[in-house]
Amino acid sequence: MNAFSPPETAWSPDQLEAQLRAIGAERYHDKHPFHVLLHDGGLSRGQVQAWALNRFEYQRCIPLKDAALLARIEAPDLRRVWRQRIIDHDGDGADDGGIARWLRLTDELGLDRELVESGRGLLPGTRFAVQAYVHFVRERSLLEAIASSLTELFAPTIISQRISSMLANYDFVSSDALSYFNQRLFQAPQDASFALNYVKCHARTPQQQFDAIQALQFKCDILWSQLDALYLAYVDPGLIPPGAFHPSEARDERVRLWRH
Amino acid sequence: MNAFSPPETAWSPDQLEAQLRAIGAERYHDKHPFHVLLHDGGLSRGQVQAWALNRFEYQRCIPLKDAALLARIEAPDLRRVWRQRIIDHDGDGADDGGIARWLRLTDELGLDRELVESGRGLLPGTRFAVQAYVHFVRERSLLEAIASSLTELFAPTIISQRISSMLANYDFVSSDALSYFNQRLFQAPQDASFALNYVKCHARTPQQQFDAIQALQFKCDILWSQLDALYLAYVDPGLIPPGAFHPSEARDERVRLWRH
Repeated sequence: MNAFSPPETAWSPDQLEAQLRAIGAERYHDKHPFHVLLHDGGLSRGQVQAWALNRFEYQRCIPLKDAALLARIEAPDLRRVWRQRIIDHDGDGADDGGIARWLRLTDELGLDRELVESGRGLLPGTRFAVQAYVHFVRERSLLEAIASSLTELFAPTIISQRISSMLANYDFVSSDALSYFNQRLFQAPQDASFALNYVKCHARTPQQQFDAIQALQFKCDILWSQLDALYLAYVDPGLIPPGAFHPSEARDERVRLWRH
Repeated sequence: MNAFSPPETAWSPDQLEAQLRAIGAERYHDKHPFHVLLHDGGLSRGQVQAWALNRFEYQRCIPLKDAALLARIEAPDLRRVWRQRIIDHDGDGADDGGIARWLRLTDELGLDRELVESGRGLLPGTRFAVQAYVHFVRERSLLEAIASSLTELFAPTIISQRISSMLANYDFVSSDALSYFNQRLFQAPQDASFALNYVKCHARTPQQQFDAIQALQFKCDILWSQLDALYLAYVDPGLIPPGAFHPSEARDERVRLWRH
């Protein structure tokens, strides 16, 4: 699916769903070589650290994105549903919720919590992609903002694979450290199902359907681009941008050469 | 220079200038391996196409950035100076100004103008970096917005090298195609000198000076990140994101392998 203009006549809701799912089949980040390495046990501890550190920026901004969306919903019933996403991520206390669970992973990987929370050492590519997502949700229509969340349609399979393969392949990762993903295994399908129904109901004209498609493609690009930045910096060719995190294992000759 | 907190006491204006220049010496994108390849004649025509296509997105958004800045300047005398940047980029007609001159380069490289202007085929990393720059200028203080333009302090040397080395190394690039850079050779030093004086006058407290430093680092990241995206996609390992431009020369076996 690589549409650059709206369909001539509107699709049925089920045809629209098929188009949306086709985007995932082509563009979701489980096709990215960094993802494949992560799941197949092909990364070093330092490379997994770099992934967890950078992905925290995404986790940190998800409630900001959802709050921006919430602030633009006029209907109380829709707000009641959407606020649950913020509750899921922020939890009921400092040790609860998706962000706290992500920090359990970075803790176990031996990353300093102050470093993780400060955002120092992030790849600029991570920062710009995450900001682009937050700005998109702030600035585009409610339909586009909700459609951009639909990458969660493709998440459950990847999440359950991630848990089992990371536990099998990395002795430095425990099941407790992966509790973030255990939760998302239940939350993501509910969220995705609600958002899909919303989009199927509200994207009725060709232009609206095109907007929804484009929003989901944009979101796939956001996820893909984060793995691109990780791959370039920490896998091949190991080109770590100035100021970004250096896993001690990755400080080999090649990395130093690229820096000068 | 990798400061994460303001200086304890304020620097003198000249000390501040030295700090700002030190950022360029460490982080300006002339240190990036893609830049080195571009200047040394190490790129194929297809790779130069990819660079020109993606860099057009940056050129296209510079007047949007400057208009966002202009819209926040209260003082007519400062507005009078800053508006010149928009005039320089947009020109006095369709064939004049920085954007039109950039299109002469993409024309000569054989890129379809409709493709270039549509933004199709852009790397997501380019798009997100450029958007981050526009949003930064919209949202941050006037001082930070102006400080972020100071990468032009470092531009004149790189620009004059670029003109001579591209003409020497690429038989598919003519001096007319590089007219954008000829203009910037005169415009950039004036712009940079004005902005530097503004920042030296207005960044007086440690916090303001820190903000200016951070803004310039951020801008260096914006430029660096664009070359990162180009390097990953079109040099090494040739990992072109879904939907992005494929130069015909780059469609080798490795690229196809990564895509599937």
